[in-house]
Amino acid sequence: MIAERLGVSVTTVARAVNGSPKTSVEMTEKVNRVAEELGYVRNMEGVKLRTGRTFVLTALLNFPTDTEIGDPTLLGILQGIHQRCANSDYSIQTIIAPDGGEDIRELEKLVRGRATDGVIMDHTTPQDTRAKYLLEMELPFVTFGRTELFSQHAYFDVDNEFAAWQGTKELIRLGHKNIALLDGPAEFTYVLQRMAGYKRALAEEGLSYRETLVRNLDPQANVAREAAAELVRTTDTDSFVCVNDIVLMGARRGVRDAAANRIEEFNFSVRSGTNLGDYLAKRPITSYFSRLDAGWNLADMLIRQIEGEAPAVLQQIVKTELL
Amino acid sequence: MIAERLGVSVTTVARAVNGSPKTSVEMTEKVNRVAEELGYVRNMEGVKLRTGRTFVLTALLNFPTDTEIGDPTLLGILQGIHQRCANSDYSIQTIIAPDGGEDIRELEKLVRGRATDGVIMDHTTPQDTRAKYLLEMELPFVTFGRTELFSQHAYFDVDNEFAAWQGTKELIRLGHKNIALLDGPAEFTYVLQRMAGYKRALAEEGLSYRETLVRNLDPQANVAREAAAELVRTTDTDSFVCVNDIVLMGARRGVRDAAANRIEEFNFSVRSGTNLGDYLAKRPITSYFSRLDAGWNLADMLIRQIEGEAPAVLQQIVKTELL
Repeated sequence: MIAERLGVSVTTVARAVNGSPKTSVEMTEKVNRVAEELGYVRNMEGVKLRTGRTFVLTALLNFPTDTEIGDPTLLGILQGIHQRCANSDYSIQTIIAPDGGEDIRELEKLVRGRATDGVIMDHTTPQDTRAKYLLEMELPFVTFGRTELFSQHAYFDVDNEFAAWQGTKELIRLGHKNIALLDGPAEFTYVLQRMAGYKRALAEEGLSYRETLVRNLDPQANVAREAAAELVRTTDTDSFVCVNDIVLMGARRGVRDAAANRIEEFNFSVRSGTNLGDYLAKRPITSYFSRLDAGWNLADMLIRQIEGEAPAVLQQIVKTELL
Repeated sequence: MIAERLGVSVTTVARAVNGSPKTSVEMTEKVNRVAEELGYVRNMEGVKLRTGRTFVLTALLNFPTDTEIGDPTLLGILQGIHQRCANSDYSIQTIIAPDGGEDIRELEKLVRGRATDGVIMDHTTPQDTRAKYLLEMELPFVTFGRTELFSQHAYFDVDNEFAAWQGTKELIRLGHKNIALLDGPAEFTYVLQRMAGYKRALAEEGLSYRETLVRNLDPQANVAREAAAELVRTTDTDSFVCVNDIVLMGARRGVRDAAANRIEEFNFSVRSGTNLGDYLAKRPITSYFSRLDAGWNLADMLIRQIEGEAPAVLQQIVKTELL
């Protein structure tokens, strides 16, 4: 009936319905639209039995604690993942991994229970245990962030080295010389990359790197608030490079705690996937990337890998844009 | 093997594994722990075939647009839902419903595809079409927000009337007399309840209700920013009751746009599930509720309904706490 309505062959429709790479996006959309008009629902249970696949993609995420604001970028990434899957057979399962190495246990459960076709995860480390495990288990996965593993795996990443370099350079251009870095824990790949970018910007401008101005912390607003206040009280810090929106919120508050009358003298830079800066009294320097685009690409790469593409070609790094 | 290890009967273990209400939380935890030590994975496919259930819970959510910050409360609710399901057989599927009545089509897909055991949804209206549809289809659901439907259904809600009343009263106590209300679109139940609370507080204090100080808007930061600026420019507004964190951010910015030199004179109240107020120069009056608790209860009520409890007993309203 669908083939007849569209004036195409049954094979063409079958290909579109089964998500064949030979089908154009337009044809898939046409077929889906007509299928829906006709009240046609695909028997996914049959497809699952036939293919041995679950058509479930798992996003392994780390959520904030109860009252703390939480990084709004995460929500956008999740939205992007959903947008990619909206007109596909895949559904998204999100799993919260509590802190402290629990990720690997969640992954073991998924693998043993054959509960998913693939995994999206962030917060990579250079020798990521989870990535090693999934490589060994041959379960497709894509990381938001890079590793230093010899084996190829799919990833999407922001150019973190560039973003931190960009923010630091801008602060120097505004006349700052005592620039603090508030970043995540140093075990994560993105943090190591950011620290390299920060150091490079300082070196290029003839400023010396001072370890006393760097804080590797749990990137939450309350932690950043304390760290910033302490930096302002005990050092000559005059500006801050912040790893994300909530660290920025905390740092601003910390400066106000320590030196309310001098808050106007400070500048902040931030890597962000939102326009939070628009709503603050003084606009921070923003290294922007699209969190929707990040999520969309993570899901797209995972699906392409599940459907046969090699991980080595599913790797993308985007540059942040100065706002 | 599990029964032997724990020194209990096989029936006790079977009950725990199958999530029988006769099992204590402690026993369930013990059994799960031993099962995991033994590398035991439940064959969920068998359970699904036997019970005709999917063990999938669907959260139908509305996400923000690309760059706008987005309400951080949503992320916390999602986290609470996950926490409830973390040690259960249920997995969470999140579905993004684009604006504009697309929710019902998403629900039709779920029902026709037998893709879920139950649905969690927010943004209820008094005569909620989606709730009517799910009642007719006999698919369990729980709403974050109430309806005025005659049929009983499960819901969890914040006492919205009380929250808006509480915020308005506090602004009056601080000496404000020209209090604007920045709220969501008037078709939603929570907005109608909030408007009632705002009016009641004004009436109790002998202040007249002025329609010109009320804005029903898409509760996003950029929209609130424009509305607040316009109110400050064209009326005698001296304070704001804000429906959520991002409307608060937008309103503050809008006041600064319109009257930067008088920003200190204004006060704001907000209904919030975060401690965002801690990070702002001037702390807003915060009517706080736990977004984790909200999410946990939504999932709990849905699971209890799926497992046989009557919707009429699965209804809970929590009061906000003044921070």
